Amino acid sequence: MSQWAIGIDFGGTAIKAAVVDKERGILTERKVPTDTASGPGGIVVQLSGIIADLYREASVSIEPNHFAGVGVGAPGAVDVVKGVLSYPPNLPGWTVFPLRDELQRCLHEKEQLSLPVVLDNDANLAAFGEAVYGAGREFQDFLMVTLGTGVGGGIVLNRKLYHGAYGTAGEIGFMILDFDGPTIHAGIRGTLESFIGKKGILAIARQMIDESSTASAVTALCGNDYARLSPRHLEQAALDGDEVSLAIWHRVGSLLGIGLANVAVLMDIRKFVIGGGISAAGDLIFVPALAQLRRSTLPPMHEGLELVPALLGNKAGMYGATALCFG
Amino acid sequence: MSQWAIGIDFGGTAIKAAVVDKERGILTERKVPTDTASGPGGIVVQLSGIIADLYREASVSIEPNHFAGVGVGAPGAVDVVKGVLSYPPNLPGWTVFPLRDELQRCLHEKEQLSLPVVLDNDANLAAFGEAVYGAGREFQDFLMVTLGTGVGGGIVLNRKLYHGAYGTAGEIGFMILDFDGPTIHAGIRGTLESFIGKKGILAIARQMIDESSTASAVTALCGNDYARLSPRHLEQAALDGDEVSLAIWHRVGSLLGIGLANVAVLMDIRKFVIGGGISAAGDLIFVPALAQLRRSTLPPMHEGLELVPALLGNKAGMYGATALCFG
Repeated sequence: MSQWAIGIDFGGTAIKAAVVDKERGILTERKVPTDTASGPGGIVVQLSGIIADLYREASVSIEPNHFAGVGVGAPGAVDVVKGVLSYPPNLPGWTVFPLRDELQRCLHEKEQLSLPVVLDNDANLAAFGEAVYGAGREFQDFLMVTLGTGVGGGIVLNRKLYHGAYGTAGEIGFMILDFDGPTIHAGIRGTLESFIGKKGILAIARQMIDESSTASAVTALCGNDYARLSPRHLEQAALDGDEVSLAIWHRVGSLLGIGLANVAVLMDIRKFVIGGGISAAGDLIFVPALAQLRRSTLPPMHEGLELVPALLGNKAGMYGATALCFG
Repeated sequence: MSQWAIGIDFGGTAIKAAVVDKERGILTERKVPTDTASGPGGIVVQLSGIIADLYREASVSIEPNHFAGVGVGAPGAVDVVKGVLSYPPNLPGWTVFPLRDELQRCLHEKEQLSLPVVLDNDANLAAFGEAVYGAGREFQDFLMVTLGTGVGGGIVLNRKLYHGAYGTAGEIGFMILDFDGPTIHAGIRGTLESFIGKKGILAIARQMIDESSTASAVTALCGNDYARLSPRHLEQAALDGDEVSLAIWHRVGSLLGIGLANVAVLMDIRKFVIGGGISAAGDLIFVPALAQLRRSTLPPMHEGLELVPALLGNKAGMYGATALCFG
């Protein structure tokens, strides 16, 4: 019989949880809004309730002896050895919190369950999920980039997560591409996220639409109201052949390519898995990104360069969390 | 009795070679001009002659049974498993060459010596030398940056060299800091080397001297001829309190700091060893570099940040080459 585990992926908006069978994949899933208002203590109670429910429900039909543990992906820097989450940017009021031990204690005291818990960063676990079950299965080493509201990253070396000495590795969103750049992100000028996070893309779009001599189809799609402009509008217009939108995605992809070039020259990583909501634009981003990646590196570094779409969507984090438990 | 080995560090200009005792350090040294005109085959003969001389000379007084091998640092991308050197930028006419095996063959055929040879990239070996014998001894993980004509790098993770999948890791000189930048290096715009390689520093200097409303002491130091301006003039003038030169080094250090920030956010490396001829400017570079590194990263990443000068000077590569042999 195969092992099973519980995978949690929680952020400032939602808690996603799943029971995953090592061979068969996700058996059951939950998604509930994160109770951010109640602070670390309240979220621990909320998480522990969800875990206990899923565990008891699953234990009716699956052998508890084959339970491998609970994996938790958290939205901030994680010390994986100590199980400590530091300064999650989207959880107001959190500073440095021993989430793993507090969760284990709460499961024990409130739910009378003694379950092993492992903790890691959410972007790392999305990368690990893709490494074990998704687009990274063929790759020994790769960087996963998540393009969404923010730009996140996770690094897999030798099929294992690379954490770095303090657990903050992979933060490609903070990579500086233009130190005199017009854009600012957390007080730092010209980072990748400032350019191609959701806000950055929309800023590029508005500027390029403004400066274009031809009209853009997105103007109608967003009802003449650029405050309502979304990446979906840009995607739809580009797929319909709108020149301005095509040029916008070309710019976004090229900026991504420059960021990936920096990863390639520094770490000699040549495989990139691209996920997150914005990556739905697919080849509109991938084609210019790969072309720019080649232009921004020397020919001896072109061997083996590959950009592939992520395969697990927003389930990558839960898969990665349970993959940690299966070890 | 302790082990000994031969370490070679060769580039487009010179071959440096040393007999190193594991405990006592360098016993004897050679430095000869590289015979670049004779191509790969000629350099193999030259290297093998130097190695044979050093080996025979040392064997008179040291126990040959304790010989650990020959380590060679080469100026280009190295496949350490295959022992192949690819496209060394400063060796005209070289493409992809099996240097390790050819050197072993030549030692055997021409010198009747059967010696084990290991090959790695020169910047990597400088980093490894500092890791084992120099400024990196206290650090588990660090990046070494070599500031000279070019800007090179080597990465040590877990006290071992990090090569990446294709052996080209650590090329921080090619990191793009300003994709629209005015400077160009190997066809790529705005790389770290384009800004703070020797040529880049002199370009920054000329521009800042031109734009300054006050006169600079370097004007006299280079005899009113900016074509003769060197980093040494800038260093001397800054140490004498020349405001313009101080501002030039501040700019150079800040640009280095931005490059290091990108390493810190991506790899979670927080220790940096700075070597190479230009690093003789010391705190003129280090102080602004560290300050900028902090400004360009988030506070949770500031813990443990350190910039230290390399300790082994131009002997780091030879030390690193023999450290590979001692294993």
